[in-house]
Amino acid sequence: MTDTTRTEIEQLVANSRDAVVCSIDEEGFPNAKGMFVARREGLHTLWFSTNTSSQRVQQFLKNDKACVYFIDSGRVCGLMLTGRMQVMTDNKTKASFWSPSDIQYYPQGIADPDYCILRFTAERGNYYRNLEKHLFTIEEGM
Amino acid sequence: MTDTTRTEIEQLVANSRDAVVCSIDEEGFPNAKGMFVARREGLHTLWFSTNTSSQRVQQFLKNDKACVYFIDSGRVCGLMLTGRMQVMTDNKTKASFWSPSDIQYYPQGIADPDYCILRFTAERGNYYRNLEKHLFTIEEGM
Repeated sequence: MTDTTRTEIEQLVANSRDAVVCSIDEEGFPNAKGMFVARREGLHTLWFSTNTSSQRVQQFLKNDKACVYFIDSGRVCGLMLTGRMQVMTDNKTKASFWSPSDIQYYPQGIADPDYCILRFTAERGNYYRNLEKHLFTIEEGM
Repeated sequence: MTDTTRTEIEQLVANSRDAVVCSIDEEGFPNAKGMFVARREGLHTLWFSTNTSSQRVQQFLKNDKACVYFIDSGRVCGLMLTGRMQVMTDNKTKASFWSPSDIQYYPQGIADPDYCILRFTAERGNYYRNLEKHLFTIEEGM
């Protein structure tokens, strides 16, 4: 991967407030949902905050295979990361993402059993720009 | 489903040039790619034009379970459709989507074996707006 491509990917992700998070449902269909990226560490680890009771979380508890997709607003380029999604329910992780306004969604606070964090660990990437395609491992993308 | 929700969904789809198309790869991971919506019939049938040799087509030939996701630019609402993706290679279908400028990608013209059309048939929908969620069958969404 060239430095230019690496910079483009970094900019695409840095400029994206949201990503499309994909899971596999109980009947084997791919599912997708736009989610706010709560935190990220390079391209290898992305964090999302959500409800434990949500369909998405229940799917990841059964099948951790996941995909996170970034697309720019002009739809010129897209980045697909595939990897595993872990459902984090420990209070230490949850506390590190907690903001006081979250109380409106989770009345029991940080320990609310319906409050959880999703941690995505990328394994592979695929970056498209126009008709060019750049397949890469996460190590190469760093 | 209320008429207001039905109208919102119709507007979201009508205003979207592209959709995120999801498939299942050979290792069982969900995959995603932004694709131009070449044609649509309501919410039940969506058409995409692509390369037969592309990763996505090869995946759909092995597993037709698919998802098409629409998201608005302000990321306020999202529509997920799940269903089946059929790879159309017959010349009649291909001719109905062909445009003269496609020759730059497919030198053999309409019959070029690398030119194909994807037909998505939706079975279910899930429309999100803020924290509201509207699950529906495709018949209800019409």
